[in-house]
Amino acid sequence: MQVESVDSLLKSSGREGSEARIQGWIRTRRDSKAGLSFLAVHDGSCFDPIQVVVESGLHNYQSEVLRLTTGCAVEIEGTVKASEGKGQAIELLASEVHVIGWVEDPDTYPMSPKRHTMEHLREHAHLRPRTNVSGAVARVRNCIAQALHRFFHEQGFNWVHTPILTASDCEGAGEMFRVSTLDLENLPRTDKGDIDFGKDFFGEESFLTVSGQLNVESYCLALSKVYTFGPTFRAENSNTTRHLAEFWMVEPEVAFADLADIADLSERMLKYVFKAVLAERADDMAFFAQRIDKEAISRLENIIDNDFARINYSEAIEILEKCKEKFEFPVSWGIDLASEHERFLAEKHFKKPVIVMNYPKDIKAFYMRMNDDARTVAAMDVLAPGIGEIIGGSQREERLEKLDERMDEMEIPKEHLDWYRDLRRYGTVPHAGFGLGFDRIVSYVTGMGNIRDVIPFPRTPKNIAF
Amino acid sequence: MQVESVDSLLKSSGREGSEARIQGWIRTRRDSKAGLSFLAVHDGSCFDPIQVVVESGLHNYQSEVLRLTTGCAVEIEGTVKASEGKGQAIELLASEVHVIGWVEDPDTYPMSPKRHTMEHLREHAHLRPRTNVSGAVARVRNCIAQALHRFFHEQGFNWVHTPILTASDCEGAGEMFRVSTLDLENLPRTDKGDIDFGKDFFGEESFLTVSGQLNVESYCLALSKVYTFGPTFRAENSNTTRHLAEFWMVEPEVAFADLADIADLSERMLKYVFKAVLAERADDMAFFAQRIDKEAISRLENIIDNDFARINYSEAIEILEKCKEKFEFPVSWGIDLASEHERFLAEKHFKKPVIVMNYPKDIKAFYMRMNDDARTVAAMDVLAPGIGEIIGGSQREERLEKLDERMDEMEIPKEHLDWYRDLRRYGTVPHAGFGLGFDRIVSYVTGMGNIRDVIPFPRTPKNIAF
Repeated sequence: MQVESVDSLLKSSGREGSEARIQGWIRTRRDSKAGLSFLAVHDGSCFDPIQVVVESGLHNYQSEVLRLTTGCAVEIEGTVKASEGKGQAIELLASEVHVIGWVEDPDTYPMSPKRHTMEHLREHAHLRPRTNVSGAVARVRNCIAQALHRFFHEQGFNWVHTPILTASDCEGAGEMFRVSTLDLENLPRTDKGDIDFGKDFFGEESFLTVSGQLNVESYCLALSKVYTFGPTFRAENSNTTRHLAEFWMVEPEVAFADLADIADLSERMLKYVFKAVLAERADDMAFFAQRIDKEAISRLENIIDNDFARINYSEAIEILEKCKEKFEFPVSWGIDLASEHERFLAEKHFKKPVIVMNYPKDIKAFYMRMNDDARTVAAMDVLAPGIGEIIGGSQREERLEKLDERMDEMEIPKEHLDWYRDLRRYGTVPHAGFGLGFDRIVSYVTGMGNIRDVIPFPRTPKNIAF
Repeated sequence: MQVESVDSLLKSSGREGSEARIQGWIRTRRDSKAGLSFLAVHDGSCFDPIQVVVESGLHNYQSEVLRLTTGCAVEIEGTVKASEGKGQAIELLASEVHVIGWVEDPDTYPMSPKRHTMEHLREHAHLRPRTNVSGAVARVRNCIAQALHRFFHEQGFNWVHTPILTASDCEGAGEMFRVSTLDLENLPRTDKGDIDFGKDFFGEESFLTVSGQLNVESYCLALSKVYTFGPTFRAENSNTTRHLAEFWMVEPEVAFADLADIADLSERMLKYVFKAVLAERADDMAFFAQRIDKEAISRLENIIDNDFARINYSEAIEILEKCKEKFEFPVSWGIDLASEHERFLAEKHFKKPVIVMNYPKDIKAFYMRMNDDARTVAAMDVLAPGIGEIIGGSQREERLEKLDERMDEMEIPKEHLDWYRDLRRYGTVPHAGFGLGFDRIVSYVTGMGNIRDVIPFPRTPKNIAF
């Protein structure tokens, strides 16, 4: 008999009376006084376990079934029955319970069925996907990732694998990790006494990338619509609930596009993804709404149902200056918006996502396109209720002389970026793109307050376990 | 008027007489004696450019159109006409040719329309996606990647983002890159005088991963069907056409599965992906078959149409020992198959893909499941004509005492892998998976002989340009 996933079995209809075979792990066992045992068996294919009823007459009922504990692996054959319990349409009446893997010392099993702190789960990141919460996160994370690929693929974008290893340390997006194979006890030296990176694996000092944007621009100016989706790195000593040293980023880049075009793209993308999550992972989202964050579902619905507001940075500053809110950080034209400002705009003023555009040039990167006013650049941030900034993007400076001016002004060394400047020498076109912190979106969708709980094995300062 | 992609315009039917607007880059310009110019305009959306006919009466014909060279960016409006040229159904008769970006000094433009060596293209990796060959590679690469995600998603697999940064250096898959933020000029020392990695970013010596397998097993033993798809690293000084220091790998892992199950999975996956490539990128594949490798298409058809052969390693050795082929490396039971052996089996003996199973334990990794004969493990390699090994996998050792025996035998330190051993303590089940070198598959599909030409920005010893 073919093995079925719990998901497909629970979703099937008209199966009462037929035989089925499942494989999975015990979530709970409950014994009734009438001499029956109820096993909740999950296999990760959906949120709900299936209920398996085992009668005491089964040959290994005393010897094995009554010893089953949370986490034991089983294979079960039985007859599908309409369930009398609430919350489930069907259950399995077992004809065979085959124990595949026991739990060594159930009393100390770290994923015992009691409620655990998120800290405890983090310390057992290798076992936490077995829990309701981490299993649901993993499925929703996958759903968002698949929806993103689908969204871009359907619209003719090409996924481009930009390099993780880079010699360029000049983007200024943050501290970088050095990558090397040099023997630290015998560092090679140049005649001048400096460390000789010429002897290192790549022949020069090398780092982990902070963004694939500059590289993907080169593919954008050939394939028109491209995106990256891969890991990026920041060696920042930030021990917060929002920062990871290793995180995944999605960066679309569109040729012949301006700032308004990618603002549109960002809105369509978020709506597409959130719709996919609500449609495909209704089970997990119901759990998040019930146990983690009451607004998990309504927050997404609010975004799907409303047009995003769009304002210029200058207007945003005016709103913030005129409002009666008390801010920790004072507001004036020229500041980078703090999280409190962003959240005020999205949560209290607009009560929906708002795209803030055209920021002061002095707080933005060298590659952003200079506006005609010569004091702002064509940058945008998407601010969402409940999180603040979730997307940051810009139109890129496609005019070589303007780009060079900015690089000089910001003291960006040109030698590593001649290839980037070439893109402006040969058939340059207006183009624009944005970056989406993938893990932050998972955190936003699930309502999980700590980003360490939405990535399988989080890397943070002093933490590289597993 | 909406901009259309060249792909959708070329694929549309019944459009003759209607207006259209496109944006892209000039591939070639040809002027006829009759006072017409023919522009081939591409935008990366498909292999073929669209032919644009420009009449000499156009207002900027003399001043601009006649100055257009390969690589110039243009926006063109015009009327769709049935084309009289061969190889294309329609063309555009231009009513407007707007030049967006010129090419600075066309004579030295590195992507001029003449034929370039692959070496030249590699040296200009930022511009090569504009060429026929690198553009086709990029689209096929994307097609394969999307098909892989779709294949796994449709079958209920969850994409798991396993960590890139790891403290575990014990898998033995190859040399690793060290990742650090220590100041090399002032390395911290312990009391004993050793380098104090406790002061490093993660508090211990850290590396780039060589495989996500061990980590993804932990998700497999909770979600049942999972896979990784991400970058992996080898700090090996291999300057070959088959090796990269940074490459992408796909690693599915299935719970309650044995070696035969994942052999089936690997066969279904390859067939699914190759079908997708032939269906979705017929244009690019026709180019590869015509210009790069005559067998590019027939090789894939051969794989799609035939059941993979399956033999045990011991049978493979017998075949190799009995055949009359001259091998450089002598054959005897216990050797690791060399590329010449693998290719003989796939190309000459079976003439189709063959899955070799149950290899001697001494040439395989510690985590592979010991067979009852105690001298082979449940490992498999998929060998394909024209490349040799394209997939390597195994059933994993799910029995803790057997795993420990192997770790002791192979002197694998246990302290970093206690979490991995936990997976065998708590509800262990048979499980199996394999690894697919993604870049090698792109190389195999396209017939591109050098793996550096199928990844956007290759990283190899002494090479980290761009």
